[in-house]
Amino acid sequence: MAYTAERADTTDIIWSYIRKEAKEMMKKEPVLSGFLQSTMLSHRCLEEAISFLLAEKLGNNAVPAQLLGQVFEEAFEADPSIAVSIRADILAVYERDPACTSHLEPLLYFKGFHALQCYRLSHWLWNNDRQALALFLQNRISEVFSLDIHPAARIGKGIMIDHGTGVVIGETTVIEDNVSLLQNVTLGGTGKGTGDRHPKIRQGALICAGAKILGNIEIGECAKVGATSVVLEDVPAHCTAVGVPAKIVGSCCPQPAREMDQSLPRLD
Amino acid sequence: MAYTAERADTTDIIWSYIRKEAKEMMKKEPVLSGFLQSTMLSHRCLEEAISFLLAEKLGNNAVPAQLLGQVFEEAFEADPSIAVSIRADILAVYERDPACTSHLEPLLYFKGFHALQCYRLSHWLWNNDRQALALFLQNRISEVFSLDIHPAARIGKGIMIDHGTGVVIGETTVIEDNVSLLQNVTLGGTGKGTGDRHPKIRQGALICAGAKILGNIEIGECAKVGATSVVLEDVPAHCTAVGVPAKIVGSCCPQPAREMDQSLPRLD
Amino acid sequence: MAYTAERADTTDIIWSYIRKEAKEMMKKEPVLSGFLQSTMLSHRCLEEAISFLLAEKLGNNAVPAQLLGQVFEEAFEADPSIAVSIRADILAVYERDPACTSHLEPLLYFKGFHALQCYRLSHWLWNNDRQALALFLQNRISEVFSLDIHPAARIGKGIMIDHGTGVVIGETTVIEDNVSLLQNVTLGGTGKGTGDRHPKIRQGALICAGAKILGNIEIGECAKVGATSVVLEDVPAHCTAVGVPAKIVGSCCPQPAREMDQSLPRLD
Amino acid sequence: MAYTAERADTTDIIWSYIRKEAKEMMKKEPVLSGFLQSTMLSHRCLEEAISFLLAEKLGNNAVPAQLLGQVFEEAFEADPSIAVSIRADILAVYERDPACTSHLEPLLYFKGFHALQCYRLSHWLWNNDRQALALFLQNRISEVFSLDIHPAARIGKGIMIDHGTGVVIGETTVIEDNVSLLQNVTLGGTGKGTGDRHPKIRQGALICAGAKILGNIEIGECAKVGATSVVLEDVPAHCTAVGVPAKIVGSCCPQPAREMDQSLPRLD
Amino acid sequence: MAYTAERADTTDIIWSYIRKEAKEMMKKEPVLSGFLQSTMLSHRCLEEAISFLLAEKLGNNAVPAQLLGQVFEEAFEADPSIAVSIRADILAVYERDPACTSHLEPLLYFKGFHALQCYRLSHWLWNNDRQALALFLQNRISEVFSLDIHPAARIGKGIMIDHGTGVVIGETTVIEDNVSLLQNVTLGGTGKGTGDRHPKIRQGALICAGAKILGNIEIGECAKVGATSVVLEDVPAHCTAVGVPAKIVGSCCPQPAREMDQSLPRLD
Amino acid sequence: MAYTAERADTTDIIWSYIRKEAKEMMKKEPVLSGFLQSTMLSHRCLEEAISFLLAEKLGNNAVPAQLLGQVFEEAFEADPSIAVSIRADILAVYERDPACTSHLEPLLYFKGFHALQCYRLSHWLWNNDRQALALFLQNRISEVFSLDIHPAARIGKGIMIDHGTGVVIGETTVIEDNVSLLQNVTLGGTGKGTGDRHPKIRQGALICAGAKILGNIEIGECAKVGATSVVLEDVPAHCTAVGVPAKIVGSCCPQPAREMDQSLPRLD
Repeated sequence: MAYTAERADTTDIIWSYIRKEAKEMMKKEPVLSGFLQSTMLSHRCLEEAISFLLAEKLGNNAVPAQLLGQVFEEAFEADPSIAVSIRADILAVYERDPACTSHLEPLLYFKGFHALQCYRLSHWLWNNDRQALALFLQNRISEVFSLDIHPAARIGKGIMIDHGTGVVIGETTVIEDNVSLLQNVTLGGTGKGTGDRHPKIRQGALICAGAKILGNIEIGECAKVGATSVVLEDVPAHCTAVGVPAKIVGSCCPQPAREMDQSLPRLD
Repeated sequence: MAYTAERADTTDIIWSYIRKEAKEMMKKEPVLSGFLQSTMLSHRCLEEAISFLLAEKLGNNAVPAQLLGQVFEEAFEADPSIAVSIRADILAVYERDPACTSHLEPLLYFKGFHALQCYRLSHWLWNNDRQALALFLQNRISEVFSLDIHPAARIGKGIMIDHGTGVVIGETTVIEDNVSLLQNVTLGGTGKGTGDRHPKIRQGALICAGAKILGNIEIGECAKVGATSVVLEDVPAHCTAVGVPAKIVGSCCPQPAREMDQSLPRLD
Repeated sequence: MAYTAERADTTDIIWSYIRKEAKEMMKKEPVLSGFLQSTMLSHRCLEEAISFLLAEKLGNNAVPAQLLGQVFEEAFEADPSIAVSIRADILAVYERDPACTSHLEPLLYFKGFHALQCYRLSHWLWNNDRQALALFLQNRISEVFSLDIHPAARIGKGIMIDHGTGVVIGETTVIEDNVSLLQNVTLGGTGKGTGDRHPKIRQGALICAGAKILGNIEIGECAKVGATSVVLEDVPAHCTAVGVPAKIVGSCCPQPAREMDQSLPRLD
Repeated sequence: MAYTAERADTTDIIWSYIRKEAKEMMKKEPVLSGFLQSTMLSHRCLEEAISFLLAEKLGNNAVPAQLLGQVFEEAFEADPSIAVSIRADILAVYERDPACTSHLEPLLYFKGFHALQCYRLSHWLWNNDRQALALFLQNRISEVFSLDIHPAARIGKGIMIDHGTGVVIGETTVIEDNVSLLQNVTLGGTGKGTGDRHPKIRQGALICAGAKILGNIEIGECAKVGATSVVLEDVPAHCTAVGVPAKIVGSCCPQPAREMDQSLPRLD
Repeated sequence: MAYTAERADTTDIIWSYIRKEAKEMMKKEPVLSGFLQSTMLSHRCLEEAISFLLAEKLGNNAVPAQLLGQVFEEAFEADPSIAVSIRADILAVYERDPACTSHLEPLLYFKGFHALQCYRLSHWLWNNDRQALALFLQNRISEVFSLDIHPAARIGKGIMIDHGTGVVIGETTVIEDNVSLLQNVTLGGTGKGTGDRHPKIRQGALICAGAKILGNIEIGECAKVGATSVVLEDVPAHCTAVGVPAKIVGSCCPQPAREMDQSLPRLD
Repeated sequence: MAYTAERADTTDIIWSYIRKEAKEMMKKEPVLSGFLQSTMLSHRCLEEAISFLLAEKLGNNAVPAQLLGQVFEEAFEADPSIAVSIRADILAVYERDPACTSHLEPLLYFKGFHALQCYRLSHWLWNNDRQALALFLQNRISEVFSLDIHPAARIGKGIMIDHGTGVVIGETTVIEDNVSLLQNVTLGGTGKGTGDRHPKIRQGALICAGAKILGNIEIGECAKVGATSVVLEDVPAHCTAVGVPAKIVGSCCPQPAREMDQSLPRLD
């Protein structure tokens, strides 16, 4: 845990916020003090806290929490960009979800956030020639959180996956920074061919609840895909696509992933 | 458990039915006798049985079942309307679900029913200034049952949530009495603004599988929203809305939530 | 376990592949050796391995894994067709899912596969007058895997349920051989009438992600239902149905369930 | 839990001490805050805390903690003398064990104390015609704490069982108030005859580590039995018995159970 | 489980008694019905019930109960003498322990009986060249029951180990049929030499609580060793040895192991 | 885990032996491969392996294994003498216990060894002003292993505690290097006075099974205390004390703790 020493200082503002929020929550709800202490307050840095929390969730008889926690810590040490992504994801949820009133809540409670960070570990394993353990984690994520994210997918930072249940993200998917996804979104393939066959979601895009985006197509920068829509062709940047199958129905607000506005332009 | 004394009499007809059904099931399937004994037959009243059953499901290392069971019992004592709602919900499932042949089955097995009753506890906590524990329960409900119901939502009685996986109900949602919802329904917001931003579902309405209702709009009394539809505007009482985005396609049967008829008027 | 003797020979090619793949995986990822040993390599035949694996997943305080494992073995002994179906299902996933590179992976990790085999046990119980235990398993499958399959449904062999979260299959559903289903598909009823009220899916059909097929209608042989579509009327063999509600938009490839092509004919 | 209301006041001095000590411990060792919160601070009275703590220890798959907790609470309500005994036992340990520096420690940590209180529950069950559950608890006490106390034995208050491992107390044993026992003491029978066949330990006696007292004999008031001694005949009040088999070697200090002095008179 | 068929008949009188007693207990104490059902009544024969019960106790993350249950069943199939010994042990406890009023109680609750039967499995493994798993079980027995029995020791049938905590039985020990041992007995070695270095206990002998028998010496047929005695030399048949170190103090009753009389001849 | 880097080299001969033995055991008994992998082979050094193994044993709901594992690692980092002691203890058991045929066995299976190493952690905590957590561990050790060792006791290296059940070691006890203790030994106080009140065991001494040594007395260098003896006065170096109460009966072999000879000089 040598990597924590230099970070335990006060320069990690997010970790400072989280500790402050955890202490306040503990005062208001003492029943949760054990939970807050063991998941947050007894740790020296955000990385250690997340390793503990997620390892407790994913661990089982086959691979106990203690071992998984060490794998998390290895990954954090080897690839500092994971820690950067996690902080960006916390901020993304904090800013975009009006029901979220603290930095602590996504960390403690949001399944979409939990699954995403577990994916970050499985992705690191995948890229370091430990595909078998990565697939094991994919299954655990699917069982525990009900999201199915292939460890080979490439996902940027500042991502929010709201609610999360039912989300499917395929093997060759690319999601750039600052994208928002809602529950039950599928980023899927079309057919049994191997090779690059899943969507590319450009930065700032918003994919609303239940949308299915199928095949190696591109959802352009800051584009929006309406709820339940089925997208089979590219959606240009800053456009809104709606329907089954989806059609372009107009432009959208400048930053749809940040606005989280699932409403649609009036179609007359 | 003083509150149980006056109820242990034979005037609670639903509890009598449940005990009778549990005894019959035990005779037919002795392998389940421990399960039936500990969840149902060893309890003095329906409230005690539900407290036990749901606390066993939601409890974990952080907040063990025993503590949760006591919180359930506190809630039942403090707010007798919860017990009334639960009985109405059991009857709702029993009457509306053709695959349900007893009062016992929803109690033992239906995830939608389980999540709803756990929400009733979290809602009581939310209203009694214990928001932190309410949010903890929201997360546990989401992990265990795959339904995400914000504790601040207001939900009436006589509710059936069929199958349940993937349902999302937002913070300012209102659901009146005798509504039916199916799996994967979203009652969501539109955008990151705070304030009253979620749907109002009037009594007797039916929201079919996978429908998304987005924003502070009203689904009128005994209206029906078709499967997978995306509703962005009010639906008047007794009307049927269908499509992505949804349009009014006609009226519907007088009591759609009771009929559970997901079919649609023929569109020619 | 007398039934295993004659099968432990080398004539079970699938079991030979699985053991070989497990040994290779163990070499590459020693952290998983306990998992692979206890779920696969310490067993004499595929049936014993599956009994162990699924009993560990479904078992809980009420019905411990050891008892469930014995019920699985009883079923395998009494009805040899279950073993045939399982092997066909493994091959189906192996052939149709481009992200699946071994026979071992569906066995170890695929929720849709796990839920399907657990359903096969519950179905056998249902047909042998043990409905109560069958319903208990239905609930456990729904809690653990997030698929809700009624034990009375009739499902053929060579079935792939991809990803699986949110799938609902009703009581009187029939699914013939070699069908593929994706996540979030509903094969549901229309209304609270009892009797034969769920879809019939003919062989070779493909039901894409999020599709809802409602009522006692027929999806013809090798037909395709597009993602998110809501089907309320029969779809003829070899046709493609799309939309909310769905319309026939053309024919489809000869073997859609094998091709897994969720794309749609261009609609102009 | 109606019985707690009148006790939650500040008149229960021991409970006040315990809460104060728990709060101090929590400040000094935050890692234990969850433990202290859930076992002590979240409860309204000592009885509720003990019910929770011991039910968590004894509960298993067969009889879960929640059910046992309710049985404890029933016993406390039905027989107020149990609560009196517990308080006397806490004081006994606090006064007699020099390594014990708070009222909280025996409650949290002392196996002998835990086993004794669990026996008090099993004894109440035995006397209320629930012998089967009483024997179940005897086994759980033996597995969890390594003390074997028959539920029919009669044991007074103000008892200290130090360390506790290996203690055996037979069916017709009587232990009066203010007795001290150490680890590995046997109060056993002689032969397979039924009927009154176990020792009677009069008040204030001290039974040192490893002593075996066998048969329906009497250890008189404030007598002492030396470590490892085997006593087969009555020991008069205020005497010390030592040896294998034991002989009377002199008188002892006025209050041996309080003094806990295992040393012996010099034998020349 | 083919071996059970021929035994499920009514010729196994002990199994018939046990089932009858379990049903009666279930009626008197419904809280235990799940426990009795899963450990006893859902099994076809005594062997299956014991396999289940002990596997549940010994199983842990490293070797789950399901796997251990299969190892038990293998042993029963391969060596029918184990089943004979178990029945003799049940009868031994039933006849000799006045606190035991049924054949069911030792099976359900007696740690000494449980540890002995687990030893029988470890001994079979040891003799079949699976020393590593045998040692694993020795550790589990020691952790769960607090008895330490080396798997290489040879132990006959009709054995009672009363209470059991603290018993130690060394590697080259021999215990013949119909011996009784009490808690805390050591059958140990003297020194670090390998080879035959532990006691030989001839049939019908009684070793009272806390006795230590050290070295390759012989306790003769139907001899008795008094409580807490330390025996370093042979004890002839039908004699009683007492003291630290032990001396022969006279003869004993004809069948000390059956009489269980721990009293001693008066020493004047 | 930075401290492990320099140790992962081949200079730690004991760790090399252990890994070699674990690999051989895995080949002979594949059922244990998960156990051996997760407890031994997946770790970089002996310290990491022991931290994992013991944390899995001591962890519970209140303080999960993951947290305890980190506390172990902290202690190893802060006080390198703990690692030295552990290695000496492994060698002590390997050399002195004829039933122990590898360096791996004590590590995996010996309760006395496990309890001793857990004590080493609790002792470090006690000395670093974390008495509360130290007492928590004392209780866990007592529950899990049935040894009760006060964290303030001072215990040297090269210690063997054989079998271990029932051992009690008081607060002000001192045990010097290379001492051997057997099951059920008490190193206890005499009376309720505080202050230095427990035995001092000088190096090389052997305390046989069931011996009770009471009070602030000294067992001299390479002295021996016979089984079940009760020692109330100093025993000079190289002498043997036997009896209840104990008398000096002669000298003993030069290195009793290494010889492990529990036999006694003939007393005529």
